[in-house]
Amino acid sequence: MKYSLRAGGKRVRPALTLAAASLFGGEAGMAAAMPSAVAVEMIHTMSLIHDDLPAMDNDDLRRGLPTNHVVYGEDVAILAGDALLALAFEHVAKATEGVDPRRVVSVLGVLGACVGARGLAGGQVMDLESEGKGDGEVTMETLTWIHTHKTAALLVASAVAGATVAGASDEDVGRLRTFATKIGLAFQIADDVLDVTSSSTVLGKTSGKDEAVNKVTYPRLLGLDGARARAEELVAEAKACLDVYGDKAAVLSELADFIIERRN
Amino acid sequence: MKYSLRAGGKRVRPALTLAAASLFGGEAGMAAAMPSAVAVEMIHTMSLIHDDLPAMDNDDLRRGLPTNHVVYGEDVAILAGDALLALAFEHVAKATEGVDPRRVVSVLGVLGACVGARGLAGGQVMDLESEGKGDGEVTMETLTWIHTHKTAALLVASAVAGATVAGASDEDVGRLRTFATKIGLAFQIADDVLDVTSSSTVLGKTSGKDEAVNKVTYPRLLGLDGARARAEELVAEAKACLDVYGDKAAVLSELADFIIERRN
Repeated sequence: MKYSLRAGGKRVRPALTLAAASLFGGEAGMAAAMPSAVAVEMIHTMSLIHDDLPAMDNDDLRRGLPTNHVVYGEDVAILAGDALLALAFEHVAKATEGVDPRRVVSVLGVLGACVGARGLAGGQVMDLESEGKGDGEVTMETLTWIHTHKTAALLVASAVAGATVAGASDEDVGRLRTFATKIGLAFQIADDVLDVTSSSTVLGKTSGKDEAVNKVTYPRLLGLDGARARAEELVAEAKACLDVYGDKAAVLSELADFIIERRN
Repeated sequence: MKYSLRAGGKRVRPALTLAAASLFGGEAGMAAAMPSAVAVEMIHTMSLIHDDLPAMDNDDLRRGLPTNHVVYGEDVAILAGDALLALAFEHVAKATEGVDPRRVVSVLGVLGACVGARGLAGGQVMDLESEGKGDGEVTMETLTWIHTHKTAALLVASAVAGATVAGASDEDVGRLRTFATKIGLAFQIADDVLDVTSSSTVLGKTSGKDEAVNKVTYPRLLGLDGARARAEELVAEAKACLDVYGDKAAVLSELADFIIERRN
């Protein structure tokens, strides 16, 4: 559990949680959201450990290090993922302080929903099923469904958790949800582009993987330039959701830019 | 997810949740505890799906049916387990009604803790590591540690969740915790005995498994009669914890008896 959590990574999800909490609750909101921020990184790490397993994407490199099962064996890797997932919920329930318990229950519901059949797991199942299929069989609609669930769901939950803990109104939470869905899709398109254009060394994970398993991606459906343009468009739309908050949303806005400017 | 949830099973854990809720909250307590009861069965089912995987116990029969990965493949089985685990938390958070949200947060913390490194996953890691070791290397102390975590932790969480939702005092919750720890250990000893004495057909899972992987068990350390006697002793101690409640605890008491009298 420690090995994969401490392997680094961009920490985009906890940054999103804390930025959302800061927008609606300032310093106190950020402090209250810290257990949720830690939890979303635990959930993300669990999903990486399990996705990298031989029975799934069968990857041996992640965050520049050997994957969990390469180091500890498949059995321990499966259990480390299970334990990290459970610890995420335990941590939010036990370590969140100074927050109305109704809001804590709400956050736990949001985090639970983003992992399951209508979240990470559902998206990954569809992703696995679409491997090796031709362009005609996997449409833009299917691809967007996969990425909305596999990638955007946890980013949305990360932002919503931060906003909820900090006491945001339903309207504000709704705005953050739209913002995070759009940057979630942009994030995945950027990932697809990097898989084509970058090296394994820079990525810290195996590059060229999508083509190797004949996976339909945004670059394949839209071309590299088309995919890049679509990601920029989504980030612009996402940032427009924040206009109503003015300069107070500067950190969230910078996170949106980082999503497509990053090199790994 | 549905396939494994609906494959049957004894439903001991949800029965424990509902019996504990009934003791402290009557009919209303039972109704309030239903989402928690469903959640503990989801968590148990997740642990069975993952434990049966080829990388773990590699079993192809469970509850009289082919195991999840035999039917759906290893990738989907891993994801179904992940999704069931997350759904357990989501369901408690979203479907529990008429309960002080502080108690709901408490239940979610208890459920999270029983799965992780100090619960199911930790117990399973130690169990896997003890396979193939000789009698001298796995002591009664180690074996009790494994079973306290691998088996008793979820039974304890099941009872505590029911009692907590129904408004039990800290003292009552403590008593239920002791009761469930003892029947948890008795339950595992009974499992070990059945693995030796029963057939796969009656068990609905592969029998003789422990000896096949050279696993240290209670029957091996204490003999069959010694193991049976220890289980009966634990059940008697467990039932003594309930004396203070008189006839009101009849269902919990019957559950304790069922633990060692069951045939599968």
